[in-house]
Amino acid sequence: MKALVYLGPGLKRIEDRPIPEIQAPGDAIVKVVKTTICGTDLHILKGHVATCAPGRILGHEGVGVVDSVGAGVTAFHKGDRVLISCVSSCGKCESCRRGMYSHCTSGGWILGNEIDGTQAEYVRTPHADTSLYPIPEGADEEALVMLSDILPTGFECGVLNGKVAPGSTVAIVGCGPIGLATLLTAQFYSPAQIIAIDLDDKRLEVAHRFGATHLINSKDGKAAQSVKTLTNGRGVDTAIEAVGIPATFALCQELVAAGGVIANIGVHGEKVDLHLERLWSHNISITTRLVDTVSTPMLLRTVQSGKIDPTRLITHRLKLDQILEAYDVFGRASETGALKVIIST
Amino acid sequence: MKALVYLGPGLKRIEDRPIPEIQAPGDAIVKVVKTTICGTDLHILKGHVATCAPGRILGHEGVGVVDSVGAGVTAFHKGDRVLISCVSSCGKCESCRRGMYSHCTSGGWILGNEIDGTQAEYVRTPHADTSLYPIPEGADEEALVMLSDILPTGFECGVLNGKVAPGSTVAIVGCGPIGLATLLTAQFYSPAQIIAIDLDDKRLEVAHRFGATHLINSKDGKAAQSVKTLTNGRGVDTAIEAVGIPATFALCQELVAAGGVIANIGVHGEKVDLHLERLWSHNISITTRLVDTVSTPMLLRTVQSGKIDPTRLITHRLKLDQILEAYDVFGRASETGALKVIIST
Amino acid sequence: MKALVYLGPGLKRIEDRPIPEIQAPGDAIVKVVKTTICGTDLHILKGHVATCAPGRILGHEGVGVVDSVGAGVTAFHKGDRVLISCVSSCGKCESCRRGMYSHCTSGGWILGNEIDGTQAEYVRTPHADTSLYPIPEGADEEALVMLSDILPTGFECGVLNGKVAPGSTVAIVGCGPIGLATLLTAQFYSPAQIIAIDLDDKRLEVAHRFGATHLINSKDGKAAQSVKTLTNGRGVDTAIEAVGIPATFALCQELVAAGGVIANIGVHGEKVDLHLERLWSHNISITTRLVDTVSTPMLLRTVQSGKIDPTRLITHRLKLDQILEAYDVFGRASETGALKVIIST
Amino acid sequence: MKALVYLGPGLKRIEDRPIPEIQAPGDAIVKVVKTTICGTDLHILKGHVATCAPGRILGHEGVGVVDSVGAGVTAFHKGDRVLISCVSSCGKCESCRRGMYSHCTSGGWILGNEIDGTQAEYVRTPHADTSLYPIPEGADEEALVMLSDILPTGFECGVLNGKVAPGSTVAIVGCGPIGLATLLTAQFYSPAQIIAIDLDDKRLEVAHRFGATHLINSKDGKAAQSVKTLTNGRGVDTAIEAVGIPATFALCQELVAAGGVIANIGVHGEKVDLHLERLWSHNISITTRLVDTVSTPMLLRTVQSGKIDPTRLITHRLKLDQILEAYDVFGRASETGALKVIIST
Repeated sequence: MKALVYLGPGLKRIEDRPIPEIQAPGDAIVKVVKTTICGTDLHILKGHVATCAPGRILGHEGVGVVDSVGAGVTAFHKGDRVLISCVSSCGKCESCRRGMYSHCTSGGWILGNEIDGTQAEYVRTPHADTSLYPIPEGADEEALVMLSDILPTGFECGVLNGKVAPGSTVAIVGCGPIGLATLLTAQFYSPAQIIAIDLDDKRLEVAHRFGATHLINSKDGKAAQSVKTLTNGRGVDTAIEAVGIPATFALCQELVAAGGVIANIGVHGEKVDLHLERLWSHNISITTRLVDTVSTPMLLRTVQSGKIDPTRLITHRLKLDQILEAYDVFGRASETGALKVIIST
Repeated sequence: MKALVYLGPGLKRIEDRPIPEIQAPGDAIVKVVKTTICGTDLHILKGHVATCAPGRILGHEGVGVVDSVGAGVTAFHKGDRVLISCVSSCGKCESCRRGMYSHCTSGGWILGNEIDGTQAEYVRTPHADTSLYPIPEGADEEALVMLSDILPTGFECGVLNGKVAPGSTVAIVGCGPIGLATLLTAQFYSPAQIIAIDLDDKRLEVAHRFGATHLINSKDGKAAQSVKTLTNGRGVDTAIEAVGIPATFALCQELVAAGGVIANIGVHGEKVDLHLERLWSHNISITTRLVDTVSTPMLLRTVQSGKIDPTRLITHRLKLDQILEAYDVFGRASETGALKVIIST
Repeated sequence: MKALVYLGPGLKRIEDRPIPEIQAPGDAIVKVVKTTICGTDLHILKGHVATCAPGRILGHEGVGVVDSVGAGVTAFHKGDRVLISCVSSCGKCESCRRGMYSHCTSGGWILGNEIDGTQAEYVRTPHADTSLYPIPEGADEEALVMLSDILPTGFECGVLNGKVAPGSTVAIVGCGPIGLATLLTAQFYSPAQIIAIDLDDKRLEVAHRFGATHLINSKDGKAAQSVKTLTNGRGVDTAIEAVGIPATFALCQELVAAGGVIANIGVHGEKVDLHLERLWSHNISITTRLVDTVSTPMLLRTVQSGKIDPTRLITHRLKLDQILEAYDVFGRASETGALKVIIST
Repeated sequence: MKALVYLGPGLKRIEDRPIPEIQAPGDAIVKVVKTTICGTDLHILKGHVATCAPGRILGHEGVGVVDSVGAGVTAFHKGDRVLISCVSSCGKCESCRRGMYSHCTSGGWILGNEIDGTQAEYVRTPHADTSLYPIPEGADEEALVMLSDILPTGFECGVLNGKVAPGSTVAIVGCGPIGLATLLTAQFYSPAQIIAIDLDDKRLEVAHRFGATHLINSKDGKAAQSVKTLTNGRGVDTAIEAVGIPATFALCQELVAAGGVIANIGVHGEKVDLHLERLWSHNISITTRLVDTVSTPMLLRTVQSGKIDPTRLITHRLKLDQILEAYDVFGRASETGALKVIIST
């Protein structure tokens, strides 16, 4: 089968690989129908993800059709159309039982990282019963690809952790795909203000179309001041970090109101400064989270009921044999305007 | 009247001052019966608290007897015995209405800071109806002095923010008075392990008597390792920072388990490093808080019902005219073993 | 001044009354600009509210202009435009401090009940600082009349107590004004299904326009069955009782899914059957609540930000000297289609 | 093997039965070491549990040793010592994933009800990976038998649902084994008052030894009045129904304070009156629950750390071949003083 393989920092190519096989009773083999590329895949390609060894098939998102299942799988059968979660969850360990699937002792984010992933014609998914979701009759499969990772990440790490609430004020720092996924799902809770902050006016324009009530280009270094003005000097109830660098985390510390939350989504490569000399008395919380995908069933219901349209995140559609081009389009997002690129097999 | 006055960095003396008078309809004048010294008073004396100007009468804790009340006070009358909260709360502003009294727009921690405090024969308390608490018949007034600040601080900033729960594991980094107050109130929730960490064996010994299940002297730099051993490699559900320096906050980041909380109590004078390059995916929360004293009524009930004995924190008892000696005893705590020093008028 | 006075069961008339005067330091006298009629006013007129004595000026909703304030009032001044909360809150008692203003020891729902109300040219409002809300510049005052009672009631008793959540299923039993207010505010949380249930097709039609996703006329006695069909046999996560009779409460018990909530809003005149022989093992909650109006500041923000348009509840507009006609229109709602009737002075 | 078999209303006997065998990949066969009798077993014997057919081996509590496991079981192996949960949980269905194991679509309370139970030498346990718990080295196995059902039931249905909190007031109506299990676990949260109510002075005496702060014999019909006196007229924050009849549920409605909770534990055989004509405005919650046993890991930690001693509930110890005598002792609890009877194989 065709597969996109990571070959070491800066290196990737399409290879021909054997179709994966059941290795454990809980496994399923899924024929991939649609997959996509994540910002994390770019991190891997930069050599920043130590757990991902050269030779790995990338990809942790997608929808497909079950091709075979192990002896212990009871919820799925050959032919079932399924959503593949980016997080594998055994359903049995202490982390899984408390809903923290990301720290499953035999799962977590392993697809396209510690084991081969979805940017291929077939993928082996461990713990299938608790890591795949049946696709409802008539569902839009491209929409559901957005439920593998980006929507639950925005929702769980940004919106839920950030305690977005009716009438509250939210700042989203960084309007790339994950910031926009947060923006879409933040509206489940009807905040009064959603302030989108980015350096790129085109991205801010997209944020505006996606529901941001205020836009701030932070190029001039006055974003904190602008937010204070918009919030009568209070700052925001929820500051969402959706970039992953010290500067944006620093900005969030300036934006957050007393009693508020800084919800970190960004994948950070270095330590940041935390200004406890000022914040110790501000009654704030800072949260971090690797998505658990506990919200996937709920997100499926909101998609099915039309409360959210995840296809708004999709800007490009390509075939699996064009995946190198897809990576190129996605990697040059500031020029191409790419958000999510659907790759069909 | 006699009063302990801050005169600038390193300077204090007992002065004779006029008895304070009602300035606003919500004020009460309280004759102080017992007060105490807080670590924050030492911060002020080092010149670290910019809001506190020379000439200020220090002190924000105490019990007393109402001497007079302003026209707007309805809940208290001359002769009522009262507990004075370290935080003044108007009860009307948005912060007060959401229970965040520490950020009251016309109150917060002002006593012995922005206005004259309790280390005197009399004190003016603004917003008396919502900042004083009636002392129940038969209550131990020395015990209640511990409810002005130290117990609610330990409980709200450490225990509540830290989500201490039955069967959970807690590490308290720093076993000074505030760490010990946290230790006492953490036991309201029956955690399975309370690991006390300090550099001073004498303090650890006190922690043991107060209910710590494990003691770690962190002098050898192996505290994180020891905690991992005690928790089967997981780390603690709740790491409580009760010192206020970068090193102890760093230790908390090493101790906290995935899904856990770092609850900061310490008053920090400088920024700290936050290792988001590791913690971004650990599903943790970091909380900060200036005590709100919302838990004071609850703490009163636990004291009255014998669930907690705050007098265990009291090591010395002196008279107001010995307050310079009291400061000395309290300031040399490592030698004197002082925790809280009761000062009677 | 003109005022609508309750004279005993079935009896009311417009009387000329003296303008009220300040009685306590916390009082304000408010010149009423707009008021409205509540279903509870009809209950009083039937003689069902024992606390309301003949001779009482009715009304507990409205907006107005502050005419004078008592010595203890600090937040409002003559000329301020204010929203009058149906619940008076002292801000000081234990109930108020925990956010349960409805059980304020010197307030609660007293306006137009235990003391004279708002269906008059002027009203005395006790505890003004904590029972009035400033009207933001440029706000639609008719919209804000809906924030005195009906919107916070629907939101707090129905939506908050009912734990309405993104992707969840909600049934609203009874589509009168309060059921519709619940329907409007339930959408703050983006449930997947909102099933409106009533006996009157016209009301169901209104519910549809207001956002109900499914309509059930329960005349045929098969509502529970229809709900089961709509929810794949599960029942609803939230069943909201917005009528106040045994039959509708019984229906809610049939509708609620395991793990769900029955949120009672209805004012009941008699006991109901609770089928614990079936429900003891269903992991449900049943909640009751007299509105606390703690959500008023939040609702103001959602109105100001355009997240909700409360004027959709207003069907008629009359002058104070037409208030008997207004009562007639409101009392014959099934014929007149009346929801809320704005009465201007 | 020997087994206690239900033969229809009023009928039971010890029979010789074949050792059960693995039927599904998730099954385990456990050699029972210790089991016990539950009040629910008496309900079955009265013919009140329709799901339990004659011929059923009773019992849903116990500890044992794994004898064999199905192909899909990964967490347990032959020879492992295990605690058997009264609730079987598949870990995969929507109910299990939200922590409501009691409503597992292929599990729930089935042991000794819909399938053969633990009052036998061996038992087949479905969904073994997520329904058994490893017994920690050195644990007291008799103590752990109390964790199969009675302690999680008291804790989850009574204490957690009842929101018992530090400084709060609790009334426990009914001091049989389940009321006492609630009493023991309520103390995890340090309430200020725990008022035990029963008709039997001997049981009240036990409640006193177990930590009740006040005792009320409700024989005189004045329990509500006594509780009001003890709580300054407020009533209790948490009223726990631990009997299961209309009279005790009625009493809870009289006891509960505004803002409080009635947590139902009792298994009810008939409907009860709910006085909404009074309670609609009292801001209360009423909760029901079939134990989910989600708290079992936490309870294990509290037992291991010595925070609770469940063996206090054990009054008698007998062998499996004396189980008819054990039923007799347990059934005549008011004479024998039996709480829990340990049955060893």
